[in-house]
Amino acid sequence: MQLISTSGLPTPLTEINQIEADVDMTENTQILFKSRPTGWVDASHFEVVKTPIADPGPGQVLVRNIFMSLDPYMRGRMRDQKSYTAGFELGKVLEAGAIGEVIASNDPSVAVGDLVMGRLGWEMFTAINAAEVSKVDGDVGSLSHYLGVLGMPSMTAWVGLRNIGQPKPGESVYVSAASGAVGQIAGQIAKMQGCRVAGSAGTDAKVAYVRDELGFDTAFNYKTVPSLDGALSAACPDGIDVYFENVGGAMLEAVLLQLNPYARIVACGMISQYNLAEPEGVKNLGTMVGNKVRMQGFIVSDHMDLLAEFRTEMSAWLASGKIKYREDITQGIENAPAAFIGMLKGQNFGKKVIQISDP
Amino acid sequence: MQLISTSGLPTPLTEINQIEADVDMTENTQILFKSRPTGWVDASHFEVVKTPIADPGPGQVLVRNIFMSLDPYMRGRMRDQKSYTAGFELGKVLEAGAIGEVIASNDPSVAVGDLVMGRLGWEMFTAINAAEVSKVDGDVGSLSHYLGVLGMPSMTAWVGLRNIGQPKPGESVYVSAASGAVGQIAGQIAKMQGCRVAGSAGTDAKVAYVRDELGFDTAFNYKTVPSLDGALSAACPDGIDVYFENVGGAMLEAVLLQLNPYARIVACGMISQYNLAEPEGVKNLGTMVGNKVRMQGFIVSDHMDLLAEFRTEMSAWLASGKIKYREDITQGIENAPAAFIGMLKGQNFGKKVIQISDP
Repeated sequence: MQLISTSGLPTPLTEINQIEADVDMTENTQILFKSRPTGWVDASHFEVVKTPIADPGPGQVLVRNIFMSLDPYMRGRMRDQKSYTAGFELGKVLEAGAIGEVIASNDPSVAVGDLVMGRLGWEMFTAINAAEVSKVDGDVGSLSHYLGVLGMPSMTAWVGLRNIGQPKPGESVYVSAASGAVGQIAGQIAKMQGCRVAGSAGTDAKVAYVRDELGFDTAFNYKTVPSLDGALSAACPDGIDVYFENVGGAMLEAVLLQLNPYARIVACGMISQYNLAEPEGVKNLGTMVGNKVRMQGFIVSDHMDLLAEFRTEMSAWLASGKIKYREDITQGIENAPAAFIGMLKGQNFGKKVIQISDP
Repeated sequence: MQLISTSGLPTPLTEINQIEADVDMTENTQILFKSRPTGWVDASHFEVVKTPIADPGPGQVLVRNIFMSLDPYMRGRMRDQKSYTAGFELGKVLEAGAIGEVIASNDPSVAVGDLVMGRLGWEMFTAINAAEVSKVDGDVGSLSHYLGVLGMPSMTAWVGLRNIGQPKPGESVYVSAASGAVGQIAGQIAKMQGCRVAGSAGTDAKVAYVRDELGFDTAFNYKTVPSLDGALSAACPDGIDVYFENVGGAMLEAVLLQLNPYARIVACGMISQYNLAEPEGVKNLGTMVGNKVRMQGFIVSDHMDLLAEFRTEMSAWLASGKIKYREDITQGIENAPAAFIGMLKGQNFGKKVIQISDP
């Protein structure tokens, strides 16, 4: 396992665990959802406020948040339309998967000092029902890993390949957004399964990382290639059997021309479309008929029955070094809006995490 | 079972079987593929020629063609690109699924007088290897039915619902091109399976037919509604669980906004795109992720292991009147190009068949 800091240099676990955060235990810092974006998200859609720390009610715990996950799907929750998760409410604290330490408890099932994970807020302290958090033992790697390589993004890659992609040894797998939280895991799992794996990313450093560090067979910078069609056919000379789809739009349109018969498209996300007021049209869908292609959307939370199996397998892979994992950690809850905006623009390099306080 | 002639009036089987065709037994009429269309097909892409009737070679039979099937997928064979079936060759006789009578045989497995089916030509007489045709007993309904309701188009509807759509009783099924060879069967099977079925077609007469004759719960004319979005949400007030996709383009784009969670799209064909030099872009694919939608292309010829099961089931449905079936028959091989062009424009009303000679 390799943990990499925001500087891009490998960092020992102990060092990152000892980062000091300036935690004022009398005041909460919260990020409110101020206004609804129609195109790109910017700072005006957020408001940073200082408030008193809430008292936990009956059956509640008060959590000092330590790490918070930022993920592209959260852009969808900013829309005013039905989706698989409820939309963010205007004027309220934004939600995120996060991990923290219980500092007060009104429930016998959770003790002060317990590490817990749940849908907490973009804030330093969250009062939440004890039933809505789960305990984390925290004995595998960094605490932040429970938001990524041992958590939902990584399980998304794992379950998407397991249930939809179903790559067979020797098949050709292509992963877009290949250095992202999901893409990096999807590509490495496919390699372990004996596939030829190609990836794309938006900087040369990311391309080098997935190829040289993660072991992808090839990768390209989608922003600098003369054409996606040419880049894809060069990267996947035998066509594509499984496309792990994180991007959508023009990328999907180009991939559709490279698919082999009976190809599977794991429709995990379409980040290229999230900030468009009007989504792009995708041509070439007709190839799905003749090539008997299956394209299937999924949401990891439908598959929580597989969580134990996933955790067992991924923990072993991490421990044995078969899976590498890169995080991009930003310090301080007040920097979360800028980090989120940057992530939607592809400025993160690895799983985006906000460190809110000291573990 | 109901058989309907080109006039739209029910016709007894005997009458249509007695139509006389002017067959000159010394000369063949063939339709050649003259030039490759890039947009809409027109008469200039075909050439009608008179040639001597071929002598069947060793192991071959000579077939007097009786009925020939015209299907939208054939437009794909006119393209100069790889597909699931080989492209038509320029300067050669066009191919089609057809049925005919053996009038000469150089193979002991086939006798003069046998009725056979196979990939024959757009011509009056075809010499073909005996191994490439299959015998038809012809005891269920009209011979032409073996090209439609007892043949590939109907099996396409049957296998698409069976393997991909998998509608459950009470679910909402929507069929585009609902009066076509495939759509009319798909809708009726879904009704038998206890679904609520909506359809669309391009004339008011077709709409009335699928609703009043075939028993669809509702239907609309996609050419005259103010908006597809509004028409679909009115036709499917509880959303869509299964979309039997024959159309593509703007129709698919609109359907994507009406799909329920876990919806299935049976990607059977996309006729709206076949004659476009540049296919349309389809927006709203992002809804497939959050709604966990499966869209799957298929080709009926992959499923020939199910042919016997299909034939048994469909023959029983036909015999008991549970399935109605409408054909649109054009007389004369020389009229096949115009009939094909009309079908691509939606001018047919029911399964398009060319009657080449007398049964």
